[in-house]
Amino acid sequence: MLNNEKINFASENYAGVHDQIMNALIEANTGAAPSYGNDQYTKDAIATLKTHFGQDIDVYFTFNGTGANNFGIGSVASKYHAVFCTDVAHLYVDESAAPEAFIGCRIYPVNSVDGKMIPQELESKLKRIGDVHHPQPKVVTLTQPTEYGTVYTLDELKVIKDICTKNDLVLHVDGARFFCAAVYLNKSLKQISADAGVDILTLGGTKSGMMFGEAVIFFNQAIAGAHKFDLKRSMQLASKNRFIAAQFKAMLAGDLWKNIAEHTNMLAKNLKDTLLAIPSIELTHPVETNAVFITLPKSVYEQLQQFTYFYCWNEDKNEYRLIVSPNTMVAEITVFTEKLKLLMGEKNRA
Amino acid sequence: MLNNEKINFASENYAGVHDQIMNALIEANTGAAPSYGNDQYTKDAIATLKTHFGQDIDVYFTFNGTGANNFGIGSVASKYHAVFCTDVAHLYVDESAAPEAFIGCRIYPVNSVDGKMIPQELESKLKRIGDVHHPQPKVVTLTQPTEYGTVYTLDELKVIKDICTKNDLVLHVDGARFFCAAVYLNKSLKQISADAGVDILTLGGTKSGMMFGEAVIFFNQAIAGAHKFDLKRSMQLASKNRFIAAQFKAMLAGDLWKNIAEHTNMLAKNLKDTLLAIPSIELTHPVETNAVFITLPKSVYEQLQQFTYFYCWNEDKNEYRLIVSPNTMVAEITVFTEKLKLLMGEKNRA
Amino acid sequence: MLNNEKINFASENYAGVHDQIMNALIEANTGAAPSYGNDQYTKDAIATLKTHFGQDIDVYFTFNGTGANNFGIGSVASKYHAVFCTDVAHLYVDESAAPEAFIGCRIYPVNSVDGKMIPQELESKLKRIGDVHHPQPKVVTLTQPTEYGTVYTLDELKVIKDICTKNDLVLHVDGARFFCAAVYLNKSLKQISADAGVDILTLGGTKSGMMFGEAVIFFNQAIAGAHKFDLKRSMQLASKNRFIAAQFKAMLAGDLWKNIAEHTNMLAKNLKDTLLAIPSIELTHPVETNAVFITLPKSVYEQLQQFTYFYCWNEDKNEYRLIVSPNTMVAEITVFTEKLKLLMGEKNRA
Amino acid sequence: MLNNEKINFASENYAGVHDQIMNALIEANTGAAPSYGNDQYTKDAIATLKTHFGQDIDVYFTFNGTGANNFGIGSVASKYHAVFCTDVAHLYVDESAAPEAFIGCRIYPVNSVDGKMIPQELESKLKRIGDVHHPQPKVVTLTQPTEYGTVYTLDELKVIKDICTKNDLVLHVDGARFFCAAVYLNKSLKQISADAGVDILTLGGTKSGMMFGEAVIFFNQAIAGAHKFDLKRSMQLASKNRFIAAQFKAMLAGDLWKNIAEHTNMLAKNLKDTLLAIPSIELTHPVETNAVFITLPKSVYEQLQQFTYFYCWNEDKNEYRLIVSPNTMVAEITVFTEKLKLLMGEKNRA
Repeated sequence: MLNNEKINFASENYAGVHDQIMNALIEANTGAAPSYGNDQYTKDAIATLKTHFGQDIDVYFTFNGTGANNFGIGSVASKYHAVFCTDVAHLYVDESAAPEAFIGCRIYPVNSVDGKMIPQELESKLKRIGDVHHPQPKVVTLTQPTEYGTVYTLDELKVIKDICTKNDLVLHVDGARFFCAAVYLNKSLKQISADAGVDILTLGGTKSGMMFGEAVIFFNQAIAGAHKFDLKRSMQLASKNRFIAAQFKAMLAGDLWKNIAEHTNMLAKNLKDTLLAIPSIELTHPVETNAVFITLPKSVYEQLQQFTYFYCWNEDKNEYRLIVSPNTMVAEITVFTEKLKLLMGEKNRA
Repeated sequence: MLNNEKINFASENYAGVHDQIMNALIEANTGAAPSYGNDQYTKDAIATLKTHFGQDIDVYFTFNGTGANNFGIGSVASKYHAVFCTDVAHLYVDESAAPEAFIGCRIYPVNSVDGKMIPQELESKLKRIGDVHHPQPKVVTLTQPTEYGTVYTLDELKVIKDICTKNDLVLHVDGARFFCAAVYLNKSLKQISADAGVDILTLGGTKSGMMFGEAVIFFNQAIAGAHKFDLKRSMQLASKNRFIAAQFKAMLAGDLWKNIAEHTNMLAKNLKDTLLAIPSIELTHPVETNAVFITLPKSVYEQLQQFTYFYCWNEDKNEYRLIVSPNTMVAEITVFTEKLKLLMGEKNRA
Repeated sequence: MLNNEKINFASENYAGVHDQIMNALIEANTGAAPSYGNDQYTKDAIATLKTHFGQDIDVYFTFNGTGANNFGIGSVASKYHAVFCTDVAHLYVDESAAPEAFIGCRIYPVNSVDGKMIPQELESKLKRIGDVHHPQPKVVTLTQPTEYGTVYTLDELKVIKDICTKNDLVLHVDGARFFCAAVYLNKSLKQISADAGVDILTLGGTKSGMMFGEAVIFFNQAIAGAHKFDLKRSMQLASKNRFIAAQFKAMLAGDLWKNIAEHTNMLAKNLKDTLLAIPSIELTHPVETNAVFITLPKSVYEQLQQFTYFYCWNEDKNEYRLIVSPNTMVAEITVFTEKLKLLMGEKNRA
Repeated sequence: MLNNEKINFASENYAGVHDQIMNALIEANTGAAPSYGNDQYTKDAIATLKTHFGQDIDVYFTFNGTGANNFGIGSVASKYHAVFCTDVAHLYVDESAAPEAFIGCRIYPVNSVDGKMIPQELESKLKRIGDVHHPQPKVVTLTQPTEYGTVYTLDELKVIKDICTKNDLVLHVDGARFFCAAVYLNKSLKQISADAGVDILTLGGTKSGMMFGEAVIFFNQAIAGAHKFDLKRSMQLASKNRFIAAQFKAMLAGDLWKNIAEHTNMLAKNLKDTLLAIPSIELTHPVETNAVFITLPKSVYEQLQQFTYFYCWNEDKNEYRLIVSPNTMVAEITVFTEKLKLLMGEKNRA
């Protein structure tokens, strides 16, 4: 993307489709296949997911992440329930009021550090159990990795899971970038989901190089209900589902998911290292996956915008977000950081 | 699809993606592009849609038809409103209870003939206006072409539109196969939408050869509200919207939409003609677009199922539906009808 | 109500509060009592209801009938479910779109005769079980007595219940005037509810002489869920619930419910007999409880309106409804029918 | 309530109905009256409300406060909107998830002091306007007096209203105890509502001595929509509305509302003064209306519970709430405080 095109550090959603995924789409485009998930591609994708996440799972596919999160959580939360997420959770700040509009329950924000929910803060909000006047705790949802790119360790997950178990709460994980967390932790997908007590997982595809499509995995069959009916009425059941399934199969049949996550995590680390060498630039959060948050003078941001897409995350703090995507190239990091050094140097001289 | 694969007369959703559409997807997969519809592909697709439907439209893209219909109707219907559709409308019989779950209003079925709403039946249901105890009429939604492949003529549309105007009702059209209707009527897309008084149109892409994606077009800007907010909270806003937009641009920039519709309509006519020549097979509805409804002995249906996908539509009447898709080939019709003749002949002799 | 006041044959809702009920309200107005149903009056009312309906019930109180029906049905119906009622059911034609807005599921109208659901019509609508595209049958709701004052016999109830059992459906009864049905059938309240297989009952208080308040009784504890939470979030939990409870206790502790129902049923029969003696007046439905439906010239209706409240029920058929209320007096029937005879006679001579 | 009965400092909802209100109910129980608010009592009550609140208002009656708040706010808030209230608002902590279930929008808690919203905290939450991914600010709702019995002054209201005006927000007030605020501020009802820029007011009846019933007043006709339809489908429209209307008329036709509020405010002041004289008891919030919040040893609370109803408000802080009701008697305060002194003295000696 180095010719006349702008570099993308804005979002994986700005990136296109990974070549191997696009090839899978092309290959899936032969012959007729039953619609709405009754096809062989879908069966294959589910079988592939089971090799990673265990045989005892229920899998449903959705179009996008907001659909996946709300379908997943909505499958277990009733209208008088409370769902707990961090105050910076995508569900809370970036999905409009979809949870309320779609599910109809309360969302309580819990304070966080570096995007991670503070367990004591969660516990302090679990109150008035059995009191009809107060929304009743039902679901805790974590983002893994978090919106700041940080990763809950297995120990940290256990602390939250113990609170869930003690209080009879369902644990949902928004894994829009879940592969990056597994690579960072050097664990299998199952170790950081089923084995960690996750009950429902939103497994992101779009941000990992797919064109569209997410998977919702239910680990705890005891809570499995009539999910397939909820999926349809949630308007998330794809007519030509083979094209979502084929992408997931391509992603997970081999090591593509791991290769992509390793690539983005490593480049983010490179980006961080290069940025830290520039005076006056500060990291605002640890870099553990593919996101780098830094402070920057606003004027520098504006000049960089001319050839690079990236977002201001917090205007008050001059905080900016840089995201590495599956198709980000080393050369793009070089070009960007060189330009940035130049601008910062000019600024330092000024 | 003639090798080892089954022939598809089940649904356009069983068919893959049209080659030219797949090429457009591949071409759109270069460089970074802003997400959520803030990209050039989306701007181009909207500009292209305006050349067909008029400059004074609002356009939003959704993932699928159920999403499009409910987003479109939900943008103008409140929780105390009534929506009127035929008793065989996709919205009423094939979208689960999405309208109620998503919008929260009443859906009243209106009797139909060959899939077309009977105007007098509609009028008889428009009652108790201003009565707080009764759902208040707000939207009439027609399917064009209908679920039986028939097409409302401009005169027929005018009769319904006049009822809408007289009763202050919004006219929505579910155009999952809209291009087929335009070709059948030999009218432009604008002539059978904006010019015919349609206020909101679901313009289908998936059934016309796309991988996924529909467009919702608002013609009557007076009723335009905060649609973009409703789109997001309806969980239908695509992260990488360029891939929906690119397909629509490819479909409508030239004559692809027309070529496909002419192809499917013509092959359906051929199929009908061939079938009518077979004794004991009867048409149950006029063939005007790409659907052919016939009666058939159940045993014949079961034998045909071995190499052809198609649905029993009404078990009580032994009614079966044959759908011609964008990639259906003449040879497939020949193979199918030859086999059918053979089976029917054997049956006649039996 | 004979002085300057208009006679009320419009609705029990036009009538005031029965004297014994008003006394119960006055008596309950002493001392402090815990709010939201945690008071002795509520405990007593539930105990009283158990003497009539059986010990194994769950009881919740609501403000009005629309609240009771939708809370009751909504406690078991999910957003992808279908509820079946007659095409003339109060739920379908007189509760706005509350079922859709509150519950979010589909309501299917079933054809009826004299207000009673036709079993074969119900059966014909129970289809596409397990098909995610179609609303899934969950609840059958009957009105007993019906909106036309007719009463399902135990045999008729059994036919419907058998269909429910066979299809795993919950049977709800809207008993806004339930006491009238019991008196007509000469059965106990339990015989026509729990013993007849009713799963959920809306037991009307307001139309039986109360100021406000209904009870929702769950017979089948297996389907009992988190009803108390649903009640609160449905905005139907009364702060000073003792005043609903005290009314139900007064109604059911002795024979008040029966006396009132006998009174209204008997007067309706008298009214019917007198009306039938007038030439050109025709009954449009059997008179079994407290409602009398007749045909009448419109001009006569308009003249009668000057001193009597009653509704035109079907303008096309010149059908009018006369309702006997708990406080209707014999003299009112005499005055009304005399006046009617006069007007009809004049009309006959004309 | 001094004989064998427990004293009530728990809630006005524990108290019965004020004698003059009960008389109004008895008087309204004569003759027939049209249902659903089409009666003379309702017309009279609305006319009476207009003498207090101005002629240019729309008035609707509901059964309870949760119904009133959610109907009122829901009349202007769409599913993608955000509503802002304090973190201690009844709407947020004591109405289950009714706002989400009924309206479907986001509720954002804003930090507060003594129950009053902190204007700067509100402003800091009004962000991302026009961003489809974030709930869009629409309504600010204040409780007047607050849940801690404190009262926004006209100046404080103006600060909040200015923020609303600047940001195009609707100002709703939950006035469950509104009369107490007017008396405290020594202003007319209009001065602290219409004249203070309130757009929608929940005017509480139940906590002011009524049996049931609240009024929702829309001041800003520009935002008036199809409220009557929303009222019915919200299941809050009373069949025999005359009995709500008659209570409001009795309350507001003369000075009853003022007398009751003066009584409760004064007794609360007396209670506070007496309590402050007891060593080790501390006020946790200013006493401005009928609520007194104090700290107390838990053991003392438990002993007092034997003959007095009152709530622990915050277990961590040993904070307790004492509410004076319309029918609270001076003698009850004497008995309670004497007993309390005794217990505290024993405790001090211990």
